Amino acid sequence: MAYEEFTIEGRNAVIEAFRSGKTIDKLYIMDGCQDGPVMTIKREAKKQDTLVKYVAKERLDQISETGRHQGVIAIAAAYEYAEVDDILAAAEEKGEAPFLFLLDNIEDPHNLGAIIRTANLAGAHGVIIPKNRAVGLTAVVARTSAGALNYTPVAKVTNLAKTIEELKKKGLWFVCADMDGTTMYELDLKGPIGLVIGSEGQGVGRLVKEKCDMTASIPMKGNIDSLNASVAAGVLAYEIVRQRMS
Amino acid sequence: MAYEEFTIEGRNAVIEAFRSGKTIDKLYIMDGCQDGPVMTIKREAKKQDTLVKYVAKERLDQISETGRHQGVIAIAAAYEYAEVDDILAAAEEKGEAPFLFLLDNIEDPHNLGAIIRTANLAGAHGVIIPKNRAVGLTAVVARTSAGALNYTPVAKVTNLAKTIEELKKKGLWFVCADMDGTTMYELDLKGPIGLVIGSEGQGVGRLVKEKCDMTASIPMKGNIDSLNASVAAGVLAYEIVRQRMS
Repeated sequence: MAYEEFTIEGRNAVIEAFRSGKTIDKLYIMDGCQDGPVMTIKREAKKQDTLVKYVAKERLDQISETGRHQGVIAIAAAYEYAEVDDILAAAEEKGEAPFLFLLDNIEDPHNLGAIIRTANLAGAHGVIIPKNRAVGLTAVVARTSAGALNYTPVAKVTNLAKTIEELKKKGLWFVCADMDGTTMYELDLKGPIGLVIGSEGQGVGRLVKEKCDMTASIPMKGNIDSLNASVAAGVLAYEIVRQRMS
Repeated sequence: MAYEEFTIEGRNAVIEAFRSGKTIDKLYIMDGCQDGPVMTIKREAKKQDTLVKYVAKERLDQISETGRHQGVIAIAAAYEYAEVDDILAAAEEKGEAPFLFLLDNIEDPHNLGAIIRTANLAGAHGVIIPKNRAVGLTAVVARTSAGALNYTPVAKVTNLAKTIEELKKKGLWFVCADMDGTTMYELDLKGPIGLVIGSEGQGVGRLVKEKCDMTASIPMKGNIDSLNASVAAGVLAYEIVRQRMS
């Protein structure tokens, strides 16, 4: 299996990529660029809600693979994103109650890959990640997912809290991982569920946490603060698996 | 917290390190070196059962930080190893049934670090790793353990199967992680227990597996082969935690 991450460089190439509907994870524009083509690119980026970063020329030179970026480099997803509805449809097709992972700003691509791998093996129907700040489906994510990215759909949404609200209307319950929560063994985690995992440093953000129905904690007996994010996701996911099996 | 990995370079320095009782994880010797001091180093390495690698001069030059290796470089542990008895003593001191992790050749330092972190938080009393082939307590392991290495003792043994045999005499039960095992929820994992986790590619070796009392599998519903080794260790460890709590 070949995993590729695309950098698309130069004004025309980037405009074309946007217009062809390609998923652009991130767009780098050189500080101060204001000419016609760059304004067109900015408009396209806004339309598609792409994350835009304004950087110095030196940074662009560093990212560039061709050396001819003309002040614009787009980073395209190594894999195509799914829609949230595709994930729900996958659950329905299998005749199973939906089981989703929602990742609130996982930044480490190794963790994201390992979590997608876990989602696949725990029988989750898909993974939802936020558009901004978090890492996208890069080549490292693809590799550490050990192939799971070919099977488990990943959707990218603008606002995780809003997505949770919408999914609650469709009957899903949301459980958020947090150290201050109820011990996971004491919660009822059966039925249609979304498991919300926070970022490595900050945990689940306040706005997202407030939307959740339950807060689950993993019992911690040790001297240090917290489990690795992908280990925590695995432990919580398998408590859901256990309850669903019983 | 500072994490350091030591390379000890040059014949005298390496001989001295061995004689002072320093834990040497690995010893690199230049191919073809047969002179007196090198033979002395080899004898010391043999006495202490240190892993020796014979490499070309170019490789030594690459590893060298001082540029003056004289054909010998020792890699010293960033942390001191504990003894298996220290781990049992720690359990006794807490008045708890021993709970140990045994890692059969984990090769990725990030996985080893994450597993030591999990061992700490799951309330395990220590981790046992084999002397040969597996990764040692390097700076990367220390960092990814998120500080757990300061609290959770790690012992290094020559023969994992033999250590299991000895610990069985002291009343421990051993459960080995394997895809062909009994679903973990159906096993009795209470009491004094050693959880045996295999390497990323091969799983638990045959000789070690044969010594185990039980084989536990994590239910897998997905399309791919296996969980990340540190995620699998976390999921199994927390099934032990759950059973111990109930």
